[in-house]
Amino acid sequence: MAARQPAEADTQRSAKWHRRRDEIIDLSATVIAQRGYHATSTTELCEANELGKGALYYYIGSKERLLAAIHDRVMDEVLAGADRVAAAGGTPTERLTMLGDALLDVIARYPDHVWVFLHEFPALTGDNATQFRARRREFEHHVERTLHDGIESGDFRDLDPKLTARAWLGMFNYTYLWLKAGGELSASQVATWFSDIFIRGIAAP
Amino acid sequence: MAARQPAEADTQRSAKWHRRRDEIIDLSATVIAQRGYHATSTTELCEANELGKGALYYYIGSKERLLAAIHDRVMDEVLAGADRVAAAGGTPTERLTMLGDALLDVIARYPDHVWVFLHEFPALTGDNATQFRARRREFEHHVERTLHDGIESGDFRDLDPKLTARAWLGMFNYTYLWLKAGGELSASQVATWFSDIFIRGIAAP
Repeated sequence: MAARQPAEADTQRSAKWHRRRDEIIDLSATVIAQRGYHATSTTELCEANELGKGALYYYIGSKERLLAAIHDRVMDEVLAGADRVAAAGGTPTERLTMLGDALLDVIARYPDHVWVFLHEFPALTGDNATQFRARRREFEHHVERTLHDGIESGDFRDLDPKLTARAWLGMFNYTYLWLKAGGELSASQVATWFSDIFIRGIAAP
Repeated sequence: MAARQPAEADTQRSAKWHRRRDEIIDLSATVIAQRGYHATSTTELCEANELGKGALYYYIGSKERLLAAIHDRVMDEVLAGADRVAAAGGTPTERLTMLGDALLDVIARYPDHVWVFLHEFPALTGDNATQFRARRREFEHHVERTLHDGIESGDFRDLDPKLTARAWLGMFNYTYLWLKAGGELSASQVATWFSDIFIRGIAAP
C-alpha cells in the first residue's frame, strides 16, 4: 500500500495540475465502474489515462488513493450542496426537499463515480476508510438534523430520525442504478416526485 | 466461460446433492462478499469449500454459474414471497405492506448473497444475465401492479407506478447495507416503519 499523498502538498499544485488530476479521476472512475476495482490493474489505469506509473503516482499517489479520490470528487459536491442548504435555511420541509435536489443532481452527473464508491468502499483501508466513513456520516447527519428539526417544530411526525434518514437515503441514493443525465426524467423531476412522496409520508397530520 | 448446467439435470439430483450445493453457494457468497467476485479465484472458492475443481464443477458448473446461483438463492425466496402475497390477496395497502415484510425478511437472512448480487450482477453474461434481469423485473412488476391497483381503486394518489416502484424499491432494497438478522431492529420492525412512511406518502387524501 503506497503512503497517502498529504493534502498540504496538493494545495500547492497549479490549477493545471488539479485539472489534469480531475481528468484522471473521472476517466478512471469510468474504467473501474465497468471492470471493478480489484480486476483493474494499475497498468490498465495508466494505459487508459495515457500515463506512466510515475506520472500516475505524481497525480494520485496509489490505486487506493485513486479510489478515495473518486469518492471525494462526489462527496465534495454532496457536502457542498448540504452546506448550501444549511446556509439557505428555510423550514425543515424546504430543507429536506433541497437536500434531495442536491443529492440527485450529483448522482445524475457522476453515475460512474457513485457506482464505484457505493460498490468498492470496502476496499478502502486505514485513513482512507476513516475519512470515507466520516464524510458519509456527515451527510447522514445533515439529513437526520433536518428530520429532527421538523419533529421539534411539529412539521413532521414523531419518528426516529436515524431510521427515517435511512429510509430517505435509500430512496434517493438508490437512483444511481437508473438515473442518468439526459435521461427521460431529469434529476430535478425525480427529486420533486420522491420528495413529495417522502414528505407526505412523514408530515404531521 | 463454462457452459451453463442445464436445469433439467439438476432436478434429477438427490436431496443430499442439493443440500451440499446450497452449502457451497452460501459459503461462497460470504467469501465473495468479502473479497469481490473478480478478485476471488476458483481455486480460493474450492479451498473455502474444501472441494476439488472437479467437485465444484459437479455441484455448480462454473464461477459465473455460482454467481447466478447466489442470485437465484435470494430471488427464489423473494419471488416465492411475492407469489404468496398475490395469492393471499387483500387491499393494495395490505399487499404493499406484505411485499415489504417479505423483502426485508429475505434481505436480513441473506446479507452476503444480497451484497454479492447487487454489486456483482454486471459480471453475469448471456443466459445468466438475461435470467437475472427477467427475475428482477418480475419482482418489480409485483410492486408496480400493486401500486397500479391502488391507484385504480382510489386508495393511492395518481402517481406514476414505475417511478413510485423505484422509490419503494430504493427504500427497501437499500437496507442491505445495515439490516442484519439479530440486529437492534428486526426486519419486521423496519418493514413496518418503512411501509408506514411510504404508504402515507402515496395514500389518496
